[in-house]
Amino acid sequence: MKKGLIQVYTGNGKGKTTAAIGQAIRAMGRGWRIMVVFWLKGERTSGEMEILKKLGAKVIFWGEEYGKKLITGKPVGNKDNIKKEAKDFLNKIKGIIEKERYDLLIMDEINVALHYGFIEEKEILDFLKEKPSSLELILTGRKALQSIICMADLVTEVKKIKHPYNSKIKARGGIEY
Amino acid sequence: MKKGLIQVYTGNGKGKTTAAIGQAIRAMGRGWRIMVVFWLKGERTSGEMEILKKLGAKVIFWGEEYGKKLITGKPVGNKDNIKKEAKDFLNKIKGIIEKERYDLLIMDEINVALHYGFIEEKEILDFLKEKPSSLELILTGRKALQSIICMADLVTEVKKIKHPYNSKIKARGGIEY
Repeated sequence: MKKGLIQVYTGNGKGKTTAAIGQAIRAMGRGWRIMVVFWLKGERTSGEMEILKKLGAKVIFWGEEYGKKLITGKPVGNKDNIKKEAKDFLNKIKGIIEKERYDLLIMDEINVALHYGFIEEKEILDFLKEKPSSLELILTGRKALQSIICMADLVTEVKKIKHPYNSKIKARGGIEY
Repeated sequence: MKKGLIQVYTGNGKGKTTAAIGQAIRAMGRGWRIMVVFWLKGERTSGEMEILKKLGAKVIFWGEEYGKKLITGKPVGNKDNIKKEAKDFLNKIKGIIEKERYDLLIMDEINVALHYGFIEEKEILDFLKEKPSSLELILTGRKALQSIICMADLVTEVKKIKHPYNSKIKARGGIEY
């Protein structure tokens, strides 16, 4: 039986989520069953979501409102409530991956949710330890926790060398989202 | 009219081609017309190719045999003949993008083809200068030429922090190809 590894895409450059999505497409091309969890994003946040669903991936979302607040710099609200919500959601994911057999689970932007303390570090580490052994896991987002980097099998730093934001070009639909 | 930028994904980490493919999926989700050129790969090299075609992208290939030879360390053959072949192929691409209107053109692994001298540097630089101004371009592959990095609007270094090859796990279908 194949062993599923833990992959992490972190860093300040463009290409973390797209690398995970491309990985999902590649794996689907080999017949893998895919589940994608978008943390801090909603169904219309980005162009890839509809297509993933159309291709048969299971796609779920958590915390779009917190993601928006982080981007605009607004206060996110009571941290304890958010942690409780995130914990329930993580349990929901556990239930799904125990029942439905996926080969690859992508947790997009979960590093950011962890960085802001929306999820307890211990909970995600337990999740990684207890995942079905054949399940490949991809975690994306800036500022990956050191403990996650330690546990991961593959870590890629997606590093900005040049970015058009620096030259005052705005985020573009189809490219940045 | 939108201005198409030049994006480069280079570096020694996992995630360059998948970032480009994920970008294609995101852009298709926004209705963009996509063309993907796989340099040094063939139709069955990787899992994503069939799905891209199924989703309506135009997908073409060049130099699978040279790619295989590079991987296995065999001599690639007469460099002048290869250069001629690559030049003809680049001209073919020019013809296609002039006639059919694409929003995004991905040139996967072209940096590698350039690094090994399969394509003349001047030819690709002319290609970049003369591309339709609305066409977004993505170039992937290790060892991007400095002149390409200079011309690009967005450059991401995909950097290996940890890779399972280092712990003697073999390349896996669905993940590495």
